Amino acid sequence: MATYVIVHGAWHHGDLMRPVAAHLEEEGHTVHTPTIRGNAPGDPKRTSLEDAIGSIVAYIEAESLFDIVLVGHSYGGMVITGVADRVRPGTIRRLVYWNAFVPNDGEALNDLVPDYFTAMFDQMSEADGTVMMPFPIWREALTNDMSEEESKAAYDRLVPQPYRTFTDKISLSRPPAAFEMPKSYINFTEDTGMPSNMPWHPRLSAKLGLFRLVQGSGSHGVGFSNPALAAERIATAGRD
Amino acid sequence: MATYVIVHGAWHHGDLMRPVAAHLEEEGHTVHTPTIRGNAPGDPKRTSLEDAIGSIVAYIEAESLFDIVLVGHSYGGMVITGVADRVRPGTIRRLVYWNAFVPNDGEALNDLVPDYFTAMFDQMSEADGTVMMPFPIWREALTNDMSEEESKAAYDRLVPQPYRTFTDKISLSRPPAAFEMPKSYINFTEDTGMPSNMPWHPRLSAKLGLFRLVQGSGSHGVGFSNPALAAERIATAGRD
Amino acid sequence: MATYVIVHGAWHHGDLMRPVAAHLEEEGHTVHTPTIRGNAPGDPKRTSLEDAIGSIVAYIEAESLFDIVLVGHSYGGMVITGVADRVRPGTIRRLVYWNAFVPNDGEALNDLVPDYFTAMFDQMSEADGTVMMPFPIWREALTNDMSEEESKAAYDRLVPQPYRTFTDKISLSRPPAAFEMPKSYINFTEDTGMPSNMPWHPRLSAKLGLFRLVQGSGSHGVGFSNPALAAERIATAGRD
Repeated sequence: MATYVIVHGAWHHGDLMRPVAAHLEEEGHTVHTPTIRGNAPGDPKRTSLEDAIGSIVAYIEAESLFDIVLVGHSYGGMVITGVADRVRPGTIRRLVYWNAFVPNDGEALNDLVPDYFTAMFDQMSEADGTVMMPFPIWREALTNDMSEEESKAAYDRLVPQPYRTFTDKISLSRPPAAFEMPKSYINFTEDTGMPSNMPWHPRLSAKLGLFRLVQGSGSHGVGFSNPALAAERIATAGRD
Repeated sequence: MATYVIVHGAWHHGDLMRPVAAHLEEEGHTVHTPTIRGNAPGDPKRTSLEDAIGSIVAYIEAESLFDIVLVGHSYGGMVITGVADRVRPGTIRRLVYWNAFVPNDGEALNDLVPDYFTAMFDQMSEADGTVMMPFPIWREALTNDMSEEESKAAYDRLVPQPYRTFTDKISLSRPPAAFEMPKSYINFTEDTGMPSNMPWHPRLSAKLGLFRLVQGSGSHGVGFSNPALAAERIATAGRD
Repeated sequence: MATYVIVHGAWHHGDLMRPVAAHLEEEGHTVHTPTIRGNAPGDPKRTSLEDAIGSIVAYIEAESLFDIVLVGHSYGGMVITGVADRVRPGTIRRLVYWNAFVPNDGEALNDLVPDYFTAMFDQMSEADGTVMMPFPIWREALTNDMSEEESKAAYDRLVPQPYRTFTDKISLSRPPAAFEMPKSYINFTEDTGMPSNMPWHPRLSAKLGLFRLVQGSGSHGVGFSNPALAAERIATAGRD
């Protein structure tokens, strides 16, 4: 049995990963679902990417976690990449990207998405420093395997995202391909969060060098629509 | 429950969509499977694309259909695109392309297939204005998930296709991406009707702008080989 | 019921194809799983590609096999292509490539893999003329759907591969697309044995001309991890 730390994506928070975590716990694993700084109520809305990364490093240290499987979903890929570069050797047993961004040094999330996304985010960013995902895109492109009711119910639980976490460039001492721990990439085949000419896999997975590919059928929101499958795929990606 | 109008592909007619329709009807939906003009016995063999489109518009008006989910399979994508551009707002609730052609203004079906298909069709077109699909291609590329008996039985029910419907350029007032109703694209992952360097998805689906992707395992002939799955995927693509 | 001859891949031998063969035999088929020359104990370690091909031709003749479905997995695709070019018409009813190499005249296996694979093989080739697959690559890229124990158990049954079978250029009188018998290509969708920018399908399958595509979920080692599915997909690919 392994210890999993699942790092959520943008507009999400740790509680939204609980259905997936529950299925892993049923199999006997220990699962942590921390909320990244900036995504909890009362967190500063101008949270930097570095602070977001630091909050997960701090969580791991506070909980004295060791030999963990560190999973990042979507924006969480930015965060786990930073965490993996900062924690002590032995902290992470395996790194698992789940339709997640894989940055090299100096790249921001906004460098890894289409220009029309960046333009839309720029235009929609609020005076308080946050940005929200528009419902029509959430409905059609991110929850394409859900009913409208399920999609709306999930949307109602989202939180505004500190936009600096998208625009800050990450600082890394090494490319992820050079990290010493093994890596996996989980690709859900109906995840249209990224467009087909800039896909999650293999565009981003290839930046990992040698990695284990695990696939399943589902949207970017498969953690809501099919948490049992998401958990099963995470376990297959996360095992030795 | 919704009202579906399923528009068949080339060499097909409405009756061939009945197994799929029956599964949707079992779920409580109302399903129409009209035959496009040119594909019914006695129809003129030099039917134009405009007449083909007009026949479905006329069907919708004659049946007083409103707020429908309009589904087009293969060549049916040419037809539903024209229909969507011509009918009154509110007629179509959602447009669903099922491994279907998506034309912009001025494009013919023959502009959207490989040159060697066009050359083959040109050579095989009959003096009466029709063209037939050769059995070896039907067998290997379009019914790759069927037994030979199933493939032959389906082939025996096909009809000659008026070739003008492939060579006529469509007239549209707007690109499909600018249509006001939401759109879905169903892609069956073993559909080798189009070659891999000119695939159905994402080459044609991308012309829809924001759309909902739904996928399943099956060939271009999945309506014959697995009508239950085809119906289930149509329902997922067609719901709000 | 058909007669299948399944030709294994590099580092493999006929016995390793038995679990797949057993499932086909349960359905009533006759299945042969010969070992390619060079891969059996005591075979010359500098076996040429031509001798490898000749050994399967000799097996077919010695067993008086006729009207067979000839299946090649991975490197076995090099071998069955050569066999198909050399045997008498009528010997092969259908040719089935299973995540397999498809060479044209004058191509070696090493011409069909990434440069970094060739460089790695060159560096790792032994003085006795063989080359071995490194375990870390086997584990992550070729057995990504297995547990570590399953991956290790399979690895322990592999044999050193005569490196000449990778570097020898094949001699063919015709391209495989011009072979008279029908062809199928089975692509397992998590087979990361080839990298995503040089995939098995459609890069190699397209060299067959008109072919039947069959897909399933699994790794390059699906014959170990899911022999029932591998057998079922082979039967779908191999039927008339």
